[in-house]
Amino acid sequence: MSNELAVVLASGGMDSCTATAWAAGRYRLAMLHVNYGQRTEAKELECFKKLVAYFDAEKMLVVDARHLAAIGGSSLTDPSMPVPPDETPGQIPSTYVPFRNANLLAIATSWAETIGATRLVIGAVEQDAPGYPDCRPAFYEAANRLIELGTKPETHIVIETPLIALKKVDVIRLGLELKAPYELTWSCYQGQAVPCLNCASCRRRAEAFAEAGVADPLMAGR
Amino acid sequence: MSNELAVVLASGGMDSCTATAWAAGRYRLAMLHVNYGQRTEAKELECFKKLVAYFDAEKMLVVDARHLAAIGGSSLTDPSMPVPPDETPGQIPSTYVPFRNANLLAIATSWAETIGATRLVIGAVEQDAPGYPDCRPAFYEAANRLIELGTKPETHIVIETPLIALKKVDVIRLGLELKAPYELTWSCYQGQAVPCLNCASCRRRAEAFAEAGVADPLMAGR
Repeated sequence: MSNELAVVLASGGMDSCTATAWAAGRYRLAMLHVNYGQRTEAKELECFKKLVAYFDAEKMLVVDARHLAAIGGSSLTDPSMPVPPDETPGQIPSTYVPFRNANLLAIATSWAETIGATRLVIGAVEQDAPGYPDCRPAFYEAANRLIELGTKPETHIVIETPLIALKKVDVIRLGLELKAPYELTWSCYQGQAVPCLNCASCRRRAEAFAEAGVADPLMAGR
Repeated sequence: MSNELAVVLASGGMDSCTATAWAAGRYRLAMLHVNYGQRTEAKELECFKKLVAYFDAEKMLVVDARHLAAIGGSSLTDPSMPVPPDETPGQIPSTYVPFRNANLLAIATSWAETIGATRLVIGAVEQDAPGYPDCRPAFYEAANRLIELGTKPETHIVIETPLIALKKVDVIRLGLELKAPYELTWSCYQGQAVPCLNCASCRRRAEAFAEAGVADPLMAGR
């Protein structure tokens, strides 16, 4: 356990819950949630707050970046665009929010520089998001360079992506090992009360729990 | 004149007015203003809207990114921190907003990708901002790489910084040549009705107009 402070981007989903559990064993935690006008924000925020309490984070910040929804271009933020149940291989899904992760990293870096955090942890998973260009390792290498150049000379913030190379089932295995509280997370792109079980995100979650051979605690009693 | 669409970041200040005049001769204009909770936002927004009308921009967008003020760390956004009249050479000024330009570029890129713009014009001036790490050419080279990696494969957006290597007096000379409407701009870090003439930004503006040998149209009648 180091004394370093890490800003952890936490949506309230399974991946960021796992990334937070990973960071909690290494760093002091500053948890950041960004509301960018996504469909299921109310549910995500509720999960985020439970995760902040569970992990006993030292700092937390909720940022309103709904301009990403105003800019549009994504079925994740535009209620008039349907969320397709299937993703077409080789195509960028309509749930892609243009340059979203760069906006999240920029906000996280501003906060990290202000509070003296030296790590920035994000639960991006390359395989989980086929076609999302901002979930690839090269994107984060470029972002690290931008952060080093764009902050004060004495500021050194390093992005860490502990899940980037994992398959979804291995994210779950890692999370179970780290006792990540998956019962407090939310994955569905559509629902706010119960998961729709039909969107791409619900399906990926169900398949991964099945492959890991464990029950999804969110499904308990259903 | 190309048929390309350019997102131009416009604060309402002299540099971005000059950059807009530069872009207006080359591209179709999509003008973007970001309110990040800066002290003089009301005045800046008023200037921005006048500039949109003057340049007859095809699209305009005003984005609320006041989370940068909430995050703090800058005298430009925190009313409890004084704006110092002098800058100490070799030191980052207290008006530095942590990683501000990366946040602006991320927002601009999200918009550019959504509307199909292929250029992103920002009036950053390296010499004008001694110590602002996000006003250096290397920062924009790294940002170009991040944009190329973080957007769709078919998206190609290039940042242009037409003023980056200019001295302030040469920005004014270029602007006068391009008939940039400086009477519609605002530079002061403090005032909302009349420029304070005492902050570093007012002084730089006054010195540069004096050096160019022309009167500042904003000072007409004073």
